[in-house]
Amino acid sequence: MSIDYQSLAVKGVQALSPYQPGKPIDELARELGLKPENIIKLASNENPLGPSPKALAAVKGALDELCRYPDGNGFDLKQALSARYGVMPAQITLGNGSNDVLEVITRCFADASSEVVFSQYAFAVYPLVTQAIGAKGVSVPARDYGHDLDAMVEAITDRTALVFVANPNNPTGTVHGAEAIESFLARIPSRVVVVLDEAYCEYLQGEGYVDGLLLLKRYPNLIVTRTFSKAWGLASLRAGYSVSSPEIANVLNRVRQPFNVDSLALVAATAVLSDEDYLRRSCEVNAAGMKQLESAFNEMGLQYIPSAGNFIAVDVGDQAADINQSLLEQGVIVRPIGGYGLPRHLRVSVGLPEENARFIEALAHALNASSGRGE
Amino acid sequence: MSIDYQSLAVKGVQALSPYQPGKPIDELARELGLKPENIIKLASNENPLGPSPKALAAVKGALDELCRYPDGNGFDLKQALSARYGVMPAQITLGNGSNDVLEVITRCFADASSEVVFSQYAFAVYPLVTQAIGAKGVSVPARDYGHDLDAMVEAITDRTALVFVANPNNPTGTVHGAEAIESFLARIPSRVVVVLDEAYCEYLQGEGYVDGLLLLKRYPNLIVTRTFSKAWGLASLRAGYSVSSPEIANVLNRVRQPFNVDSLALVAATAVLSDEDYLRRSCEVNAAGMKQLESAFNEMGLQYIPSAGNFIAVDVGDQAADINQSLLEQGVIVRPIGGYGLPRHLRVSVGLPEENARFIEALAHALNASSGRGE
Repeated sequence: MSIDYQSLAVKGVQALSPYQPGKPIDELARELGLKPENIIKLASNENPLGPSPKALAAVKGALDELCRYPDGNGFDLKQALSARYGVMPAQITLGNGSNDVLEVITRCFADASSEVVFSQYAFAVYPLVTQAIGAKGVSVPARDYGHDLDAMVEAITDRTALVFVANPNNPTGTVHGAEAIESFLARIPSRVVVVLDEAYCEYLQGEGYVDGLLLLKRYPNLIVTRTFSKAWGLASLRAGYSVSSPEIANVLNRVRQPFNVDSLALVAATAVLSDEDYLRRSCEVNAAGMKQLESAFNEMGLQYIPSAGNFIAVDVGDQAADINQSLLEQGVIVRPIGGYGLPRHLRVSVGLPEENARFIEALAHALNASSGRGE
Repeated sequence: MSIDYQSLAVKGVQALSPYQPGKPIDELARELGLKPENIIKLASNENPLGPSPKALAAVKGALDELCRYPDGNGFDLKQALSARYGVMPAQITLGNGSNDVLEVITRCFADASSEVVFSQYAFAVYPLVTQAIGAKGVSVPARDYGHDLDAMVEAITDRTALVFVANPNNPTGTVHGAEAIESFLARIPSRVVVVLDEAYCEYLQGEGYVDGLLLLKRYPNLIVTRTFSKAWGLASLRAGYSVSSPEIANVLNRVRQPFNVDSLALVAATAVLSDEDYLRRSCEVNAAGMKQLESAFNEMGLQYIPSAGNFIAVDVGDQAADINQSLLEQGVIVRPIGGYGLPRHLRVSVGLPEENARFIEALAHALNASSGRGE
């Protein structure tokens, strides 16, 4: 009569450890008895600017319709994406954040008999969605914290169904240029689906960076995923998408939940796509904040992984857990990434200038206290 | 070089036909050149009252935080559910609508080697999520349009991993009382997970109805699912949940996406749970509207399936597709349910009195036109 219901779960699920998100401000406030307004969160690569005025206005205009189901086809958002990026609506699959699209892709093209290739230190969702369906995850050792694309090509076997490439990668911020990505794609068999995760692509500045959308015509096995949670500033609403061939999009759209993106996410995402000023400011604030953090790390003699995203992983030494705890007690939330195999690093999201300054000060304090304890 | 990417999809997905949602008002307006304000939609079992003022206020109060990720643990909403229903937060799994929870349950407890049992005419999502993972769906013939619970017990085999019971059922509105459900549960082996889908339970009036939450202690294999999309009036925001043993919830929470419920859905659902007045009015408007529709069908000599939900399936005869087309041309959207094996029926959601009246008038017109064509 007494049954262990965990043992009834399918095998992949039994072995699964759930994703560890950044600690919410309210949770830290509850745990340590701090006031939420005294806490800063630089833990989830969120846009520090606050929402786009255009997105806000669109959400406010849609509140009368809360009782109505969303448009399951996302007509307006697909039209807006189509107009901005020169792709067809039939190439687009909308998701509840790009996390949702990544999961749907995996469930569509891999099963318990498949291998799924990704890089060491790559976004945690790739191994998680792989594990959940019982497929075999193949983690390819990184090179200088980034994807070793040559080794990833070599890791392809007859069983490989799917390859994930994060460009830039989270949590390391490493990025590959157009030539490296193209050379990689050219060496992947066309029966293997390649996901190019461009969640942070809007932050890429300067020349030589790849725009995955331009590669779709030449590589029909390519799926590019993007999100509204980072530079577009809509993390709370969960909107992401993929662009692929219409054939692949047709498969993905069969499996996604019919109302996976909610009405407010749809209108906000549609509206923000026309807010060029917001996107420009997001990138400017990020570039300035990144310089501010790098300068501080240099002055403090800390190593960091140069990042193309809106975050940076800094090596704070063997006592990273203590440092993190001290930061929390000072009301500063960043992300420990020991779970990624980087136990000496903390990942800090780029905030507003005053947030970055407060983090730097708190970090200096934590490092002093830690070295004091070591004596 | 030319690959058919549909053939690369996993088997279950290749055979999948996606869910057909109710037609959105804007889509009909585009298709037929109608003005959206002249269209009424009684197609998706939405609450016709418009949103709860408490939910609206909560959403407005959360708009400054659109850049922040949701609380992945849904702390406040779980507290509110816990307080209202006398269950522990650890028993709750939140979902992007109950659709999400239904899918997660299926992916956790069934795989390609499993059988999943549900009733003929039951909610379309059960066979869809079953098909997507390549499990075998076992559709048990209905009795009087409702679940034949005895036959469902008999359909259980050694391979059965999961049974879905919708109570009340959509699209037929049929419901089983407490005794029937208990007797059913007592006959299901405890290694088989039973999902009692109570999406419409708030509409149940009077005695003798089952409250699945009260059965959880006696049946550890039971999962009760509910939604904020119907009586609570938050369909646009996608919030649902399941209540189960903590052991089962622990499994489900590993597999759900970490931010599957967005921030505005969390605050709106938390707020609406305290809006007793809204819930009472929702049920009153529904009961009155149901009488209005039944009376009209009786006068028109139309058979219908008595319904415990906020919708009713009416038999409009062999020409249901034509009747539906005429309704659309008159700006009235209802739901054809031929896809459910009920080609003579249209499912109409209970609207406001004036919406019901307009539907009745349009239906009479459509029936006259149809019988005219038949002469």
